Amino acid sequence: MPQKKDILIQNLLTKGVSRIIDREHLEEQLRSDKKLRIKFGIDPTGTVVHIGHAVPILKLRAFQELGHQIVLIIGDSTAQVGDTSDKDAERPMLKREETRKNAENYLAQFGKILDLSKLEVHYNSEWMDTTNFNTVGELAKNFSVAEMLDRDNFSKRFKAGIRISLQEFLYPIMQGWDNVQVKADVEVGGNDQYFNLLAGRPLQEVYGQSKQAIMTFNLIEGTDGRKMSKTYKNFIGLSDAPNDMFVKIMEIKDELILLYFIHCTTLLLSEIEPYKARLLSDENPKYIKMDLASIIVSLYHGEEAAIAGKVYFEKVLTDGIVPSEEEIEKAYLDTKEIDLGNLLKEIKLCATTGDVKNALSGGSIRVNNEVVSDSKMMISLSSEKGILIQMGKKKFRNVFLK
Amino acid sequence: MPQKKDILIQNLLTKGVSRIIDREHLEEQLRSDKKLRIKFGIDPTGTVVHIGHAVPILKLRAFQELGHQIVLIIGDSTAQVGDTSDKDAERPMLKREETRKNAENYLAQFGKILDLSKLEVHYNSEWMDTTNFNTVGELAKNFSVAEMLDRDNFSKRFKAGIRISLQEFLYPIMQGWDNVQVKADVEVGGNDQYFNLLAGRPLQEVYGQSKQAIMTFNLIEGTDGRKMSKTYKNFIGLSDAPNDMFVKIMEIKDELILLYFIHCTTLLLSEIEPYKARLLSDENPKYIKMDLASIIVSLYHGEEAAIAGKVYFEKVLTDGIVPSEEEIEKAYLDTKEIDLGNLLKEIKLCATTGDVKNALSGGSIRVNNEVVSDSKMMISLSSEKGILIQMGKKKFRNVFLK
Repeated sequence: MPQKKDILIQNLLTKGVSRIIDREHLEEQLRSDKKLRIKFGIDPTGTVVHIGHAVPILKLRAFQELGHQIVLIIGDSTAQVGDTSDKDAERPMLKREETRKNAENYLAQFGKILDLSKLEVHYNSEWMDTTNFNTVGELAKNFSVAEMLDRDNFSKRFKAGIRISLQEFLYPIMQGWDNVQVKADVEVGGNDQYFNLLAGRPLQEVYGQSKQAIMTFNLIEGTDGRKMSKTYKNFIGLSDAPNDMFVKIMEIKDELILLYFIHCTTLLLSEIEPYKARLLSDENPKYIKMDLASIIVSLYHGEEAAIAGKVYFEKVLTDGIVPSEEEIEKAYLDTKEIDLGNLLKEIKLCATTGDVKNALSGGSIRVNNEVVSDSKMMISLSSEKGILIQMGKKKFRNVFLK
Repeated sequence: MPQKKDILIQNLLTKGVSRIIDREHLEEQLRSDKKLRIKFGIDPTGTVVHIGHAVPILKLRAFQELGHQIVLIIGDSTAQVGDTSDKDAERPMLKREETRKNAENYLAQFGKILDLSKLEVHYNSEWMDTTNFNTVGELAKNFSVAEMLDRDNFSKRFKAGIRISLQEFLYPIMQGWDNVQVKADVEVGGNDQYFNLLAGRPLQEVYGQSKQAIMTFNLIEGTDGRKMSKTYKNFIGLSDAPNDMFVKIMEIKDELILLYFIHCTTLLLSEIEPYKARLLSDENPKYIKMDLASIIVSLYHGEEAAIAGKVYFEKVLTDGIVPSEEEIEKAYLDTKEIDLGNLLKEIKLCATTGDVKNALSGGSIRVNNEVVSDSKMMISLSSEKGILIQMGKKKFRNVFLK
């Protein structure tokens, strides 16, 4: 075996990996010439993909680089049921159209990491729509009520008297059924998916297939050290503008730096060693974090954007200087007149009307350096001279008519 | 309202009835001119129908006599899942062909009680085959894990650490789904079906239908006072020969006489009163039991057979006399030579090879008045003179070549 492949396999099996079942068999298969089918399932229940979601996608990239087949399952059926593995309550169900739209949006963002042309993509309604009640029964037979209730989140809710619907028990079975359909050799996912991933194995055995290996990862924490989540607004989105992304990475707690190197970059473990050494030295962690931010921004936006992001960060934050017009991100809208509230959403400084309201009432919005609080204020755009919109201390946009 | 109808409704609502939900609404509907849809579901998991099974069928007859539509659901799908309401463990699943064959056999026996020409019969695979995974999820959403585990049999097993498969939780949902499909107004069943019957109500509500009424009955006990069951050999089968049926009814414990009058006859409550009075008097219960046996045999085999049964019983059992050739049931086989073991099975004195072995080793089989213990003994049949086979003191067959 060439040394390079060996190194890649070792990295694949260890870097950022929490659990593998079973590792010996997986390693053997990786060392063979077999093209493995690596399954990853997503429930397109939202629109934002953040670098926490990207952890398994980066692992898929490592599999793809070794020549394996990535099989992406878009759970348009499962999304309707709703996974509650990591939740304390039942989840509202999504309409199928909505999930399809979300899925396309997800895929576009995954394209920043994976070679989409080599992907095998399935919507699981392909088979779920024709799986009938008896088959569901046959599948359900392989799982016991006790083992379901043993799952941490169900067990907690059951003890607390919080309703668990029978539908929720069907979720892992649906996911396992996906794996039988696509004959997965390996499935990857977050640690919160551990039990769901396991569900594929007995079903594959019943249907005469080899049991898939599973590989799970720790969830990475958000900029504030809490779980990365849209709710906490502590996430770094794959679609964040380069400068914003740079700044957000600079905001993470120092103790997260190494974890981000491991989980959020494509560096080999040997390439991370020097940063580990620097973190143990007397060096100001800020400089190591700047290298981290450059690496991550470069991954998603290219090297140039990473250099620009670094300059931006140094100017705005370190020196407290408003950036020059060329350094500020430009936004183009195709309307001459727009009210401030909608403008803030169009240029993605705010995601919702609620965000707009909060930002305006908190006095953190400036238009051409003046604080403004009226969301109805009409803004006239021109293609010659931009309108400078500032949110807080760190975010700038120069808005032009397209 | 004519007095007759009023009496029939009162009997319908009270005779042998354990629980009704909700009674007020049901009574109102019965008093209206509405033709109600009365659902009864059977899982054709065996071949024997005994008079315990007949309890709800007799109630269906009462509904039928009042002009309502009986809707019989043959659970060829549910039988594959297996109901474990009254079981302490999972149940093996039946193949669909087998359930169809059983169902036809059941129906033939129900014809002794119901007007089959007025029956609406459905196999539930009609809709189960096209009910897909998402719909199962939608249905399952209406039930919680906690309420399922609250069921007596599940709760016991869960506490005892006996496996409950998820498939078993799907059973009441399937049954409830049947009720939505046929738009049942009323469902009847044994008390052991109480929870399953309830499952129809929330689902009907979700699908915009009125919630069905439900009516359940106590299970009647077998001849020995234990639960009537094939296993205990304490059942009276609808297909039992008239004389055998008469004798078996004479074997029931005296304290069961009134219950059998209520549950196993079509008598009105007012017609049962005199027997109740006789039971409280000094009369030997044997004579009341003989009336009961005559009434039940008459229901299934006609009045003449009932009279013959009574004569047979009096002669054989009371006077200890072997019946005359004319009085003994005749059996016809189309083979000239047959060994004793197979003959005992063919003429239905024994059900299994195990039964044969027990009867022979216990010395209870006589061939032409001689005790025989060899199952391999060859018997030659003729069409002129029968071979007299006797089992124990009470059962005789005169066997001829066809």
